[in-house]
Amino acid sequence: MNILIVHAHPEPQSFTTALKDHSIQALKDLGHHVEVSDLYEMDFNPVASKADFHSRGNPEYLNYALEQRHSSKAHTLTEDIQVEVEKVQRADLLILNFPMYWTSMPAILKGWIDRVFVSGIFYGGKRFYNHGGMVGKKAMLSFTLGGREHMFGDHAIHGSIEDLLLPIQRGTLAYAGFEVLPPFVAYHVPYISNEARQQMLVDYQQHLSNLENLKALEFPKLEQFDDKLYPLPKG
Amino acid sequence: MNILIVHAHPEPQSFTTALKDHSIQALKDLGHHVEVSDLYEMDFNPVASKADFHSRGNPEYLNYALEQRHSSKAHTLTEDIQVEVEKVQRADLLILNFPMYWTSMPAILKGWIDRVFVSGIFYGGKRFYNHGGMVGKKAMLSFTLGGREHMFGDHAIHGSIEDLLLPIQRGTLAYAGFEVLPPFVAYHVPYISNEARQQMLVDYQQHLSNLENLKALEFPKLEQFDDKLYPLPKG
Repeated sequence: MNILIVHAHPEPQSFTTALKDHSIQALKDLGHHVEVSDLYEMDFNPVASKADFHSRGNPEYLNYALEQRHSSKAHTLTEDIQVEVEKVQRADLLILNFPMYWTSMPAILKGWIDRVFVSGIFYGGKRFYNHGGMVGKKAMLSFTLGGREHMFGDHAIHGSIEDLLLPIQRGTLAYAGFEVLPPFVAYHVPYISNEARQQMLVDYQQHLSNLENLKALEFPKLEQFDDKLYPLPKG
Repeated sequence: MNILIVHAHPEPQSFTTALKDHSIQALKDLGHHVEVSDLYEMDFNPVASKADFHSRGNPEYLNYALEQRHSSKAHTLTEDIQVEVEKVQRADLLILNFPMYWTSMPAILKGWIDRVFVSGIFYGGKRFYNHGGMVGKKAMLSFTLGGREHMFGDHAIHGSIEDLLLPIQRGTLAYAGFEVLPPFVAYHVPYISNEARQQMLVDYQQHLSNLENLKALEFPKLEQFDDKLYPLPKG
């Protein structure tokens, strides 16, 4: 497979960065081809703005999604966006590798989504979920957090991690057509021993060597809804 | 009340911006004092990095939250962060006003959270949820989106909007101690008539004039959990 790892951590010596580095090696050893976007190293600009378009469909009023559609057709997206779009288009699997900030992605990674998941390419009209622009590709999260595993769950203090991930896994990746593989979650990272962290690297390698057998998460299919997107009766 | 509106939209003529402008006027008419952080206008930097600290507790290794704690004590946070922290500290109510991007906040607003919700001030140790640093303050979302109302809900195509908002309303605002008021949601904005939009401005004004009567959303209280944060039996 062609695999794109998008990595977002401000500290090159961090465990999140070690996850990225080890996964590159592990995936290469498994025979995959790996590309990496290290957003902090690239000094990636995460702010969606009118400066993202060399030409505008409507120079008087910025509707960002409409200008994405215009510029993707006219080939007038800025180079930093175009390069990332092409990396995703080349990939069979997209891995987002990050530290959880405020039960979500760091802003630099959210902005990579905002700017690179271009309307007209990643989605548009009735092309979303299982008809999204990225159908046929897989995506997976790999992230670290401070909390312990028992702090997440239906009755746990922070609620279920699946619910917290809905905007990313459902509203973003599944919406754009990706088949979403179960995430690799590294809990309590700042507080555990080096041995425990080494074990996590081994666990992640295991997760990656088993990619083909991972069962994708379940998300809506357009066929379950009518043409106004009201749910159809089941069965 | 002192009210801080944090606004994030790249188009000054947008309806999201109109919501911000009308709310400023409506809140002033109601006798409140209003401050505004217009993140695009301010060219706010959303990327958490080592450059956020004039001095470091550990110059060799960046643990962002630990450095926030260090710099908040040492008064060495960069000025752009310090100014925003003080705005929140002065506010009785924080309003986040934004267009929904990928079922979440635009990156520039996510980065405002990442950098301004400083460890040691907003939370730290056992100071979170109903013991968070911002206890006594309220917070509220006001946002626009393209989807129609019937596309959100437990059996709807995008799932429930409350679930999609969990990382912001629970994992961020409630975690930091804010009492979270019900959001004002403007559905289907790019596709509706000017008359319908005018009605939404009236509805928002109504929502704002009723702030005192809005029932806060329910989130965990630390007293429901033991000292390791396992849930206590109910009753």
